[in-house]
Amino acid sequence: MNALTIVKIGGNVIDQPERLQAFVQSFADLPGPKLLVHGGGSIATRMGDRLGIPSRYVDGRRITDAETLELITMVYAGLVNKQLVAGLQNIGCNALGLTGADGALIQATKRPVQSIDYGFVGDIQTDGVNLILLRQLLEAGIVPVIAPLSYEQGGSLLNTNADTIAQELAKALSSYYDTSLIYCFEKAGVLQEATDPNSVIPTIDTGSFQELQATGIVGGGMIPKLSNALAAKGAGVQHIIIGQAEDLPQLLTQKKGTRIL
Amino acid sequence: MNALTIVKIGGNVIDQPERLQAFVQSFADLPGPKLLVHGGGSIATRMGDRLGIPSRYVDGRRITDAETLELITMVYAGLVNKQLVAGLQNIGCNALGLTGADGALIQATKRPVQSIDYGFVGDIQTDGVNLILLRQLLEAGIVPVIAPLSYEQGGSLLNTNADTIAQELAKALSSYYDTSLIYCFEKAGVLQEATDPNSVIPTIDTGSFQELQATGIVGGGMIPKLSNALAAKGAGVQHIIIGQAEDLPQLLTQKKGTRIL
Repeated sequence: MNALTIVKIGGNVIDQPERLQAFVQSFADLPGPKLLVHGGGSIATRMGDRLGIPSRYVDGRRITDAETLELITMVYAGLVNKQLVAGLQNIGCNALGLTGADGALIQATKRPVQSIDYGFVGDIQTDGVNLILLRQLLEAGIVPVIAPLSYEQGGSLLNTNADTIAQELAKALSSYYDTSLIYCFEKAGVLQEATDPNSVIPTIDTGSFQELQATGIVGGGMIPKLSNALAAKGAGVQHIIIGQAEDLPQLLTQKKGTRIL
Repeated sequence: MNALTIVKIGGNVIDQPERLQAFVQSFADLPGPKLLVHGGGSIATRMGDRLGIPSRYVDGRRITDAETLELITMVYAGLVNKQLVAGLQNIGCNALGLTGADGALIQATKRPVQSIDYGFVGDIQTDGVNLILLRQLLEAGIVPVIAPLSYEQGGSLLNTNADTIAQELAKALSSYYDTSLIYCFEKAGVLQEATDPNSVIPTIDTGSFQELQATGIVGGGMIPKLSNALAAKGAGVQHIIIGQAEDLPQLLTQKKGTRIL
């Protein structure tokens, strides 16, 4: 099996030109076929403020009405995606930007309204990832750069969490590639002591995750991120690492960050 | 040689939901490989007004400063491109959206500052069209949907007129395909009498174009459009037709519109 690296990068790095430039260079330098999934929520919030489109959240998830869907389509598929693509092309990395609608890449179902109406939010379908297209692109030496928008056949673009998109792509591609899924976020890994960057927990499995939750060492936004990572591991993704963008090369070689077992 | 149809659609159709829906359907129904190039200037102007980014023009060309480049990247590559891609996917047409940066599709040079500084405006390079990528996509049954943004290696995305992009793509692809280049605009063709939609001039060549200019029958925005079309013809594009979006099937079969000879 050939190796494949899937990197998820969050909006906080994208939002800082110097950090972004360094990240783009270290991503371009990764060996072999690779794929980038990006967020952009903080930029969408700021652009929404300028346009008078308020950002509303329930449990950390953006409520996506029709106007918000237009906003995030502009920001994720336009501004952020093309900034990354042009930045990568500038240093010789043959990037090509996509949403879930392009080539029917990521098919989803609009989330049914239960107690909360999330609006135009998509849950990725089983077998919703267009593996044929992804493999054609990867085999042609192209580096897909994927915005966090899925697509409902007969419907519209839908808002889908970038961590979830990265996980579903990794699950689908792990049948064909020895896949490393790297979640880049603002910390050096999952920390034993929240304020000590030297307290990175080197490995986490389902058992230790439960313990870390029970003792309160992990909480908040780390819980869905780790659940997501453990689900990817359970579904057969070969290597999963969580750490900070600045350590990208060492995350891939598993010398830094937190590995999911 | 296999047939290929390249259609350029303007922002005025994209801006009207019913006309857009009808256009998307008739484009999807065209037989064989095809490619869509779109504008979106009027939508960018409206979004710019909401964001406090004024639209400034010299000789009908938008002055593209850094803020305007961000605006048109959001609107062209995000909002308009993905609306067309999702609309086409919805009716079974396997569309995939691109800018000139994606896969290094359209390489350009930033226009040198002479009497006017157009800002981030790109003139497409000789051999600037990535034919390998376009042919791979077309042969895989994919329908490229191309936003009017070119790209300078080592620089950034650049604003390039959609008519010009359509012309350059047609010129490059006409070596491999029997190419029909169709410019859709708001009239049934080039009109002998500006107010009479039944006065379509069936054919125009270099000689009759000069006569039409001399007699004042064509003027304003029609002059660059026709110069553009005649240049494409001179460069070997097999079939060039100008007409209205509603007549798309009859434009391809050359039963309506104005043919460039």
